[in-house]
Amino acid sequence: MVQTPNPTRPLAGVRIVEISSFVAVPLAGMTLAQLGAEVIRVDPIGGAADYHRWPVTDDGDSIYWAGLNKGKRSVATDMRSAEGQDLVQRLIASSGVLVTNVAGREWHSYDTLTRLRPDLIHVEVSGRADGGTGVDYTVNAGIGFPMVTGPAELAAPVNHVLPAWDVACGIYTALAVVTALRHRDATGRGQRISIPLENVALATAGNLSFFTEAMVNGNARERIGNSVYGQYGQDFTSSNGVSFMIVALTWRHFRDLAELTATTKAVAALADTLGADFTDEGERFRHREALSGLFGEWFAAHTADEIAAGLSATSVLWERYRTFAEVADGPKVTANPLFSRLQQPGVGEYLAPALPAAFDGVHPASAAAPALGADTADVLAEYLGCTAADIARLTSANTIA
Amino acid sequence: MVQTPNPTRPLAGVRIVEISSFVAVPLAGMTLAQLGAEVIRVDPIGGAADYHRWPVTDDGDSIYWAGLNKGKRSVATDMRSAEGQDLVQRLIASSGVLVTNVAGREWHSYDTLTRLRPDLIHVEVSGRADGGTGVDYTVNAGIGFPMVTGPAELAAPVNHVLPAWDVACGIYTALAVVTALRHRDATGRGQRISIPLENVALATAGNLSFFTEAMVNGNARERIGNSVYGQYGQDFTSSNGVSFMIVALTWRHFRDLAELTATTKAVAALADTLGADFTDEGERFRHREALSGLFGEWFAAHTADEIAAGLSATSVLWERYRTFAEVADGPKVTANPLFSRLQQPGVGEYLAPALPAAFDGVHPASAAAPALGADTADVLAEYLGCTAADIARLTSANTIA
Repeated sequence: MVQTPNPTRPLAGVRIVEISSFVAVPLAGMTLAQLGAEVIRVDPIGGAADYHRWPVTDDGDSIYWAGLNKGKRSVATDMRSAEGQDLVQRLIASSGVLVTNVAGREWHSYDTLTRLRPDLIHVEVSGRADGGTGVDYTVNAGIGFPMVTGPAELAAPVNHVLPAWDVACGIYTALAVVTALRHRDATGRGQRISIPLENVALATAGNLSFFTEAMVNGNARERIGNSVYGQYGQDFTSSNGVSFMIVALTWRHFRDLAELTATTKAVAALADTLGADFTDEGERFRHREALSGLFGEWFAAHTADEIAAGLSATSVLWERYRTFAEVADGPKVTANPLFSRLQQPGVGEYLAPALPAAFDGVHPASAAAPALGADTADVLAEYLGCTAADIARLTSANTIA
Repeated sequence: MVQTPNPTRPLAGVRIVEISSFVAVPLAGMTLAQLGAEVIRVDPIGGAADYHRWPVTDDGDSIYWAGLNKGKRSVATDMRSAEGQDLVQRLIASSGVLVTNVAGREWHSYDTLTRLRPDLIHVEVSGRADGGTGVDYTVNAGIGFPMVTGPAELAAPVNHVLPAWDVACGIYTALAVVTALRHRDATGRGQRISIPLENVALATAGNLSFFTEAMVNGNARERIGNSVYGQYGQDFTSSNGVSFMIVALTWRHFRDLAELTATTKAVAALADTLGADFTDEGERFRHREALSGLFGEWFAAHTADEIAAGLSATSVLWERYRTFAEVADGPKVTANPLFSRLQQPGVGEYLAPALPAAFDGVHPASAAAPALGADTADVLAEYLGCTAADIARLTSANTIA
């Protein structure tokens, strides 16, 4: 039940156990923590497979791990031992929610755990629905996006760098947990939820019509470089070598772009020549190369600052391409209330992002990530009633750390 | 309140009004509909800016629109007229939840609407937190990913084809709605939630360390083609020209890959020569080119079928690159319970994806998308008490359609 009415911590009072590694489930747990839940990540002693993942500091501390485990508590225990499994089972039963991507373990399966906690919410992320393994980069290869990403003249696949499926899967996982919490509040019943990473990718590609157009029209998307499919959208380069992305979704955007680039008459003449109606977004897409040829001259003749000033005075959607280092050092990060200074042991002080959804104008900020096992003794004492003597015995037996 | 205990329709009984276009908010509304909510998309007469978006059928019906509005009801009204605005305000007040990406309209602002419905849940997606405009492709340009995507020798930016920020933003929006519903159930209070698309991208890039490594280590990610950063992951091509993505996250995966490609001794010799310890994932990443040179010979000497058979017998994570058309026609779609046959007026019959999260083993399936305005009269009668005479008058005044 909700214990406090704090609108920016709506999940306060909810306790969740996370047994995870890599991106999707850690992101889910962190998101739920940002919403106010107490999230206890349980790891093997020494850390899970993601504990040393790059990027790392000069001393070898994982910046990556710190980034995806902000605001959690950490318990470290030997989950290969019967006593370690028993502790974790009791912790899950006491908490009432498990999120995990460690699939197929009988000891923390839905059937086993609901004998201890009948109204358990059990959310399991797997690679594929058939039980097969898969990670973002293999799943992505099998969906179709790499074959249409990158310059049109390229034949080889181009992988994404953002693990987009992991990210989507992580947010779906958080959504599943909150939906199940609300359902349990109302009905008293728990739920068994499974989210195969591959199905997240397949559903998304399907929702966005990438499969449907093949089924219905018998053709599939081609590689079109940096053009936006079905709209007028294209990248341009300034006289001093800076790239810009331009999108004209509406006739007003498109008219403004022509006006800015002093091509209104040339665009009209092109429409006449081609018999094209540029008030139709499809026509703007079909003839994008001719249009880009016209617009490109203006971009090539102006500096980045001139282009930015010009575009700012129009309705055109645009952005200057930036590197991660430029963004990290620029106002989108340094002057954005989404980010706040975080002192992260092992990593140092940095600007850490909060939840991107703002509640009543506030982005719920994140606390630092825990040291591995930092909360083991406290959590076992608080929720399982372990005494100091119990903790000492478990520690000397190497069951906890 | 939850009216039915159907575990696969946990949001049954919730009614949501959506005023939207494009991807993020339509995806949010569809996701909430898949979870059992009644979602009423309200559009201008003739459709919003996304109503004709590509891909389209030969007859010009938008496959895209049908894909992102499955299972909703549709109301069409003239939202520039005072009477149209009044109808929509009353519908929102009666429903209690608004999701929208039409930002900055006073008549459906939080302040205006909470005078009619004090416990309203109001979720607004905007381009940027500062009120500026932005769409996925412009936001993405400003974050940093296009500068590190694609072949290492490339200097130009490479855009993603998947609108990953829209997708993430849409699922965050659904998460925000359900979180606020649970909070309202418990406290009786509504919420004002804002989700800037750019902040979704910034938070995600930040959570995944892309900014943090620049802040902490003073360096930023380089363009590394299809390699997986910090791990051993690489694409290879078979003797018959088929591409495969290979990922070895663990020492076991890596050892299996060496064994399959008959390079165990060569890898050991390479480790000796380089003084490298390949049990360390960072070392496998650092020396990926030398390793890929060794493994690549085996791939180039075998057909795609031989490679698939060989990899299947190992722990290595792998996938064959596929085109959208191949996926649409293959068992990942045609033999996957995630997909079910949907008869979509205007588009035809196709295999449509359900929610990728399965509740008690069931992926909640989607109904067809509505025809624009198909539910206007029914919704106004059911929730605003409009009579047949009211509907006739509003129709002849062109206030509804």
